[in-house]
Amino acid sequence: MLNYDAILIRYGEIGLKSKRVRSRYERILVENIKAVLHLHKKTYSGIRRDRGRIFTHSNDPDIADVVANVFGVVSTSPVITTDPDLQMMAQMAADVGELTIHQNESFAIRARKAGVHDFSSRDIGVSCGDAVYERIKGQNPSIDLTSPDKEIFIEVRPDKAYVYTKIIKGVGGLPLGTQGRMVALITDDISSSVAVWLMMRRGCEIIPVCCDNAHLSGAAEGGRAVEHIKILQRWAPNYPMKIHEVPHGGGVENTYRIAAEIAKKERAHGIITGSSLEQVAAQISADVLAEALDIDFPICRPLIGMDRAEIVSFAKRIGIF
Amino acid sequence: MLNYDAILIRYGEIGLKSKRVRSRYERILVENIKAVLHLHKKTYSGIRRDRGRIFTHSNDPDIADVVANVFGVVSTSPVITTDPDLQMMAQMAADVGELTIHQNESFAIRARKAGVHDFSSRDIGVSCGDAVYERIKGQNPSIDLTSPDKEIFIEVRPDKAYVYTKIIKGVGGLPLGTQGRMVALITDDISSSVAVWLMMRRGCEIIPVCCDNAHLSGAAEGGRAVEHIKILQRWAPNYPMKIHEVPHGGGVENTYRIAAEIAKKERAHGIITGSSLEQVAAQISADVLAEALDIDFPICRPLIGMDRAEIVSFAKRIGIF
Repeated sequence: MLNYDAILIRYGEIGLKSKRVRSRYERILVENIKAVLHLHKKTYSGIRRDRGRIFTHSNDPDIADVVANVFGVVSTSPVITTDPDLQMMAQMAADVGELTIHQNESFAIRARKAGVHDFSSRDIGVSCGDAVYERIKGQNPSIDLTSPDKEIFIEVRPDKAYVYTKIIKGVGGLPLGTQGRMVALITDDISSSVAVWLMMRRGCEIIPVCCDNAHLSGAAEGGRAVEHIKILQRWAPNYPMKIHEVPHGGGVENTYRIAAEIAKKERAHGIITGSSLEQVAAQISADVLAEALDIDFPICRPLIGMDRAEIVSFAKRIGIF
Repeated sequence: MLNYDAILIRYGEIGLKSKRVRSRYERILVENIKAVLHLHKKTYSGIRRDRGRIFTHSNDPDIADVVANVFGVVSTSPVITTDPDLQMMAQMAADVGELTIHQNESFAIRARKAGVHDFSSRDIGVSCGDAVYERIKGQNPSIDLTSPDKEIFIEVRPDKAYVYTKIIKGVGGLPLGTQGRMVALITDDISSSVAVWLMMRRGCEIIPVCCDNAHLSGAAEGGRAVEHIKILQRWAPNYPMKIHEVPHGGGVENTYRIAAEIAKKERAHGIITGSSLEQVAAQISADVLAEALDIDFPICRPLIGMDRAEIVSFAKRIGIF
C-alpha cells in the first residue's frame, strides 16, 4: 500500500485567462472542491493553490476520484511528496516501483519539471529509472518508454517533488459559478438534464424549472424530473438549486413565458432547453415562438448538434440513465 | 481474400420517424451515398433499399469505409450474399472462417434474423459454428461467445442471407438535406467549421458566409476559412456550397446583418456560429446583439456546451486539424 499524502489536481481552460480572471476562477474552483469533499464526507488537512495546480492534503487516495468529477478539473493523481532532490526522488521512485511493478513487467519513468533546479528532466529519468531497476532486479524488470506495463510519474515543483502512478481523467469544463446563471426547463426525459449538465460544465449556475407532470399531479413521489434535478444537484453541492414549477396546463407558450419571468426575476442570462433533439426544425420553431412571445432571453440548446448516442453516453456519465 | 459482393449499410434515427417521412429520408440518404461514391470514384452495379437497410452491390470492400462517412449512416459491413438456407449459410460461414480465423484463435457466430424462416437464430449459430469448427479443426480453434478473437456475423433477411466479419462505425446523425438550410458564419478558427459540421450531421444544408480576412485581402490563396469550407464540402458533395463573403471592415454587427440578409434571400432557417466558445457570456452577448439588431433568425451555437478537447477531437475527425 502506497502512503499517499496529497492529491494533485490539474485544471485546464482556466490557464487561458488573464491573471485576474484566473485567480477568481481558481478561488471558485477551490470552494467547489471543498463542497464536493464535504458532500462525500471526505476529510483532509488542507487545500492550497500552487502555480497552476491545486493540492488537497490527505492520506485518502479516493479523494482523487471524487475531485475528478468537479467541473473545471482536467485530471487528478494521488501523490507522495518528497524533496526536489535527485537522491530523495530516486529512493521514493524505488519504493513506489517495488510496490507496483510485478514479476516480468516493464516500466517507464515520466519526469516533468517546473522551476529552476540543478538537474534536467532527463537526469530525473536516469536516476529514478536506475534506482527502480536496482531495487526490483530480482523480478526480471525491463524499461519500455513506448508502452510500459507500469509508469512512475515524477513532477518536480520549485519547493517539492511529487511521485505518483495514476492519472484520473477529470470531467473538464470551467468551474461552476464562473459563467453566470441560466434558467433551465427540465422535463422527465434525459435530454433536458443532459443539456443542463453540459451548461453546468461550462460554468453556469442553474435555476431549474420543473415541467414534469408526474410531479405536479403528485402521482409518483416527485417524478423523474425532480429525481434528475437531485442528481444534478450532487454535481454542484454548494449551489443549491431552487426548483420552480410550471403550473399544470397552459402548453409550451405558457412554459416559455413563465421561464422568462423567472429569468427576469432571478437576473439570469438565458434559458436552457434540451427538448426536441431529433429535429432541428422543432428547435427552430421554439425559437420563433420565443420571438413571437417577445421573450428577451437567449435560448440555449446545447444538444442541437448532438446525436442520440452521444446524449445517452452523457446521461450515463451523469448518472441519470 | 473474401469475395465480397455487396456493402450492407445500417442507418439509425430515421427508424424513429413515420413511414412517409422515413421513406423520404431514405431516398435522400441513397442520393447522398451515390454522390459520395462518385466523389471517391467508386464503382458499383446497383444500390437498393430493403426494409431498414441499404445495399450497395460491388466487390470493392473499401466502399464500406467511404459510406461510413455519409451523414445518417450508423455502420457498414462488406458482405457475402447467400440463400437463407441453413446448409448454404453454414458452408459460407466455413469458407469465411477458414480465411479469417488463425491458429489457436477463438471464434463466435453472431446470428440475426428478420422475416419468417423455419429455423431460429440459435439454429443458425449451431449449424454455422459446427461447420466452421469442422473446417478448421486442424488449427486448434475454440468457441468463445464472450470475447472471441474473431466473429462471423450472419444476417438473415426474408429472401437473402449475408455473411460478414467487420462492422465499421458510421458517422451517425441524419441524412443531409432532410432538415432545412442554415447560413453559417465561417472564420479561420476550427470552432466555426466544427459547428457547421455538427449541424450538417444533424441534416442541415449549409450556406457558408466567409469571414476570413486573409481570404478577402487576397494574401494567402483563399485563407483557412475557404480551405475548411472545401473540406466540409467533401462531406456533402451533392449539396454545392455557394460561398458568400462579408466585405472587409464593418465589425460584428455588420457580419450579423449581412448573414441575416443572406438567410432571408436564401430562405434559410437560422444562422450557425461557433465563435466565442470559451465564455458563455460572449455567446450570450452575440444573441443580445442579434436581438438589438432586430435579426429575425434564430442563432444556433452547437458548441455552447462543449469542451475545447471535444471540439478538437471533432476537428480531427472532420479533417481540419
